[in-house]
Amino acid sequence: MHLFYQPDLVASATAGLLTEDDSRHAVKTLRLGTGEAIAVTDGHGNRYSAVISQADARKCGFRIVDVQTTPFRPFAIRICVAPTKNIDRIEWFVEKAVEIGIERISFFFGQHSERRVLKMERLEKIAVAAMKQSLQSYLPQLDEAVPFPKLLTTVTESQRFVAHLPDNEQPIHLGKQASAGSEYAVLIGPEGDFSESEIKQAVDAGFQVVTLGPNRLRTETAAMTACQVLNFINV
Amino acid sequence: MHLFYQPDLVASATAGLLTEDDSRHAVKTLRLGTGEAIAVTDGHGNRYSAVISQADARKCGFRIVDVQTTPFRPFAIRICVAPTKNIDRIEWFVEKAVEIGIERISFFFGQHSERRVLKMERLEKIAVAAMKQSLQSYLPQLDEAVPFPKLLTTVTESQRFVAHLPDNEQPIHLGKQASAGSEYAVLIGPEGDFSESEIKQAVDAGFQVVTLGPNRLRTETAAMTACQVLNFINV
Repeated sequence: MHLFYQPDLVASATAGLLTEDDSRHAVKTLRLGTGEAIAVTDGHGNRYSAVISQADARKCGFRIVDVQTTPFRPFAIRICVAPTKNIDRIEWFVEKAVEIGIERISFFFGQHSERRVLKMERLEKIAVAAMKQSLQSYLPQLDEAVPFPKLLTTVTESQRFVAHLPDNEQPIHLGKQASAGSEYAVLIGPEGDFSESEIKQAVDAGFQVVTLGPNRLRTETAAMTACQVLNFINV
Repeated sequence: MHLFYQPDLVASATAGLLTEDDSRHAVKTLRLGTGEAIAVTDGHGNRYSAVISQADARKCGFRIVDVQTTPFRPFAIRICVAPTKNIDRIEWFVEKAVEIGIERISFFFGQHSERRVLKMERLEKIAVAAMKQSLQSYLPQLDEAVPFPKLLTTVTESQRFVAHLPDNEQPIHLGKQASAGSEYAVLIGPEGDFSESEIKQAVDAGFQVVTLGPNRLRTETAAMTACQVLNFINV
């Protein structure tokens, strides 16, 4: 069953149109014709069983047969990460995090960030593709990059962590510090790591310093590891 | 401190030469000169503190000051994975698995594998780079791809798992089925998944069917998730 994404559907709809990208994909690439069954998600938890009513490669129409609503997960993961110098690495993180399961990805620029510009359009497309690929019904929220102090003001999650390796102590592992069934926010620093002042700001804002294991991890690997660990403690 | 890789060192050595690649990197790129301190690993657990004795961009000589041996981890992870059609995805898996921590990666061709050729040289280089990047002293073993039945004959690890989603049942999660402090082997199928006959062969060879979570994961994401989970249960 092919899964498409149409964010404009409302739960009471009886029919709809695929987006232009998905119309082309359905009709030109997959050669789906009138009467064929498809699935459509609105990215807000609703998955529609539908049948193609008009196989138009620009505006592919479908008729809705049934709708299933997936409840929210009983926990929520938000990873706040500084974009990497090499954009491929952060794109890769977005793909993998969405596949594995994440509610929200927030980007920030730290004092030691080399990258100072982050375009969201391509990241949004990657998130949509990963949602479809992994057959999920929720599209995670992606937040545009803001300076680190501003990011901190947006964090309301009850369990807050900052991944950091202090010089003289070994913090507790994220997976031992976090408890199941909660809302988590984890801060992952840029390639040049957080500054001492940033760590202090985070601690003052109620973030606990945690480790992600004994090895030195790249930014995107650390972000992905945090996402994996928080998913796993909720298995 | 810059970490270099010289597999030919023996633990009793008092001096050595960097490889040609590392010599160029040290002398040309990093502009290290005679008398500067470096670290060298042999990939077998020994890390040498050394001083450059001859800053030659082809054969950079060093004098060994000290050697530290890292013990094996008290567990060992082996992931056996079918190479992906898009080679980038398996290269990415090798990089991430080495960063996170893995002892051995074995490749195999399954009945549904689309890729039938896998060159090891580039994968070896990626593994070396990831080992250096994450400051480890062991280079994981990478095994050339063999047909699936042959792969099964090479598995001697005591805890054996095959990641698979049967149609009618929900297997136990890998992280709940595996116990800490052991040797693990996990089989991850190709994009077309394992055939039923392959699953039967694995079960007959003592592999337990496990899940890696509720979402449908790409091959490389599943392989990486297995690696993450097994590392985490040993924290």
